[in-house]
This record gives sequence, structure tokens and C-alpha cells, in this order.
Amino acid sequence: MTTSQKTMTTKDVANRLVELCRNGQIFTAQEELYSDDINSIEPAHGMLPSAKGKKALNEKGAAFAAMIEERHGGSFSDPIVAGNYFTSAMVLDATIKGQGRMTMEELCVYEVKDGKIVTEQFFF
Amino acid sequence: MTTSQKTMTTKDVANRLVELCRNGQIFTAQEELYSDDINSIEPAHGMLPSAKGKKALNEKGAAFAAMIEERHGGSFSDPIVAGNYFTSAMVLDATIKGQGRMTMEELCVYEVKDGKIVTEQFFF
Repeated sequence: MTTSQKTMTTKDVANRLVELCRNGQIFTAQEELYSDDINSIEPAHGMLPSAKGKKALNEKGAAFAAMIEERHGGSFSDPIVAGNYFTSAMVLDATIKGQGRMTMEELCVYEVKDGKIVTEQFFF
Repeated sequence: MTTSQKTMTTKDVANRLVELCRNGQIFTAQEELYSDDINSIEPAHGMLPSAKGKKALNEKGAAFAAMIEERHGGSFSDPIVAGNYFTSAMVLDATIKGQGRMTMEELCVYEVKDGKIVTEQFFF
């Protein structure tokens, strides 16, 4: 390689994502680890639409943040890695505006290419 | 409940599936834990087509088994559970007919409803 920057492995990306998310640094994670062409896939019954590209992803994140009245707690599991994919289970205990307090559990699946997250998909 | 059979939780199903798969009892797992309406989703670039229903799933399993010349090893990770979903990472070291020996790694995501697996989706 001609640059000093080494491409991160899927395991590197997985560990760093979970570390940042546990610190509440979701937007830092997206800036640092996500591809500009990120494809963010929500289930059809979700509260948010899917998003393509970092701008749309940021807007989705801001929309979700605006829905949260209070965050009471949450967690991210240690990741499981398989080839170019990894997964982590997320739990969020929050009061959603107009809907009350609820605990959300979802499985987050990520695809990594050239050291960047190119797809994230949520299952709940 | 009026029957003596308790509906399995997602965690119960996850642990039992991984236990049976580690014992090589994939078909037993499908018979015991899968819904008749199972939706088995393969990636577009996979060697096998997706399958809907137990009959199609069995045919897909038999087709895959027929492709394997020799199984050298493999593993299933402990599952991660989130709500109605769980996941396990599978590794298979096998010689595929006409393609030689290869190590396959994939992330398997399962959806559970009423104590049965209704969807399985593979990421690789």
C-alpha cells in the first residue's frame, strides 16, 4: 500500500462501531465508518423510512432523535462477525413523543466493503 | 393454556437450533423448529435459490447436501437474541463438487413467531 492508512477489517469496524455506539457517538460512527453510498434498510412496519446515502441517513437519524423525549437506557451487544458481515443486538429504553415509554430491541446487520459499512439492516 | 406444551421463547428456539446444528442435525432442526410456511431467503449471488415452505426448504437442503463432496469442519456461534429475532454465524469448511475446498462464512438471521422459525435469511 502507498498510504499509511490500513484498511480496517470487518472485525475492526464491528468493534469500533459498537464502542462508539456504547458511548452514544452514533453520528461520529456514521462519519468515520460509513460509506458515502450507505444503504440503510428499515423494516416496512418501522417508524422510519429506509435511507440511501449519508445525507438521507443523517436526516433519518435526526428524525429519530427528534422523536425521543427521554432516553432511559440501552445497550449494544458484542458483535458477531461472519465474512463481510457483522451483527449486534441493540436495546433502547426510551419515551417516544406521543407514544409513551417503550423498550425496543432490534438486530442490526452490517455489510462491510473496503473497510467501510455499505449496508445496515434492522430486524424487529 | 389448555395444552401441556409451552410455546418456546425466541431464546429457547435460538439455543435449540444452534445445539441441533452443532450436532449436524439440520433436518431435525427444520422439522422441530420451523413453521410450515418458512421463508428461506438466500442472497441473489448465492449458489442456491430462496425457498418458501418446508417442502421447498427440504429440496434446497438436499440440493446443498448433494453439492458437498466432503465436509472438513465447521461451527455455529452462540446466538444473539433481540426481540423476535436471533442470529448465529456459521462457518463451513467443505469441498464443493467441481469447485474445490473452500471456507464459507455466513450470518444467519432468524425470525420467530409463536415459537416457530418463520423466516431465515443468509448474509454472505
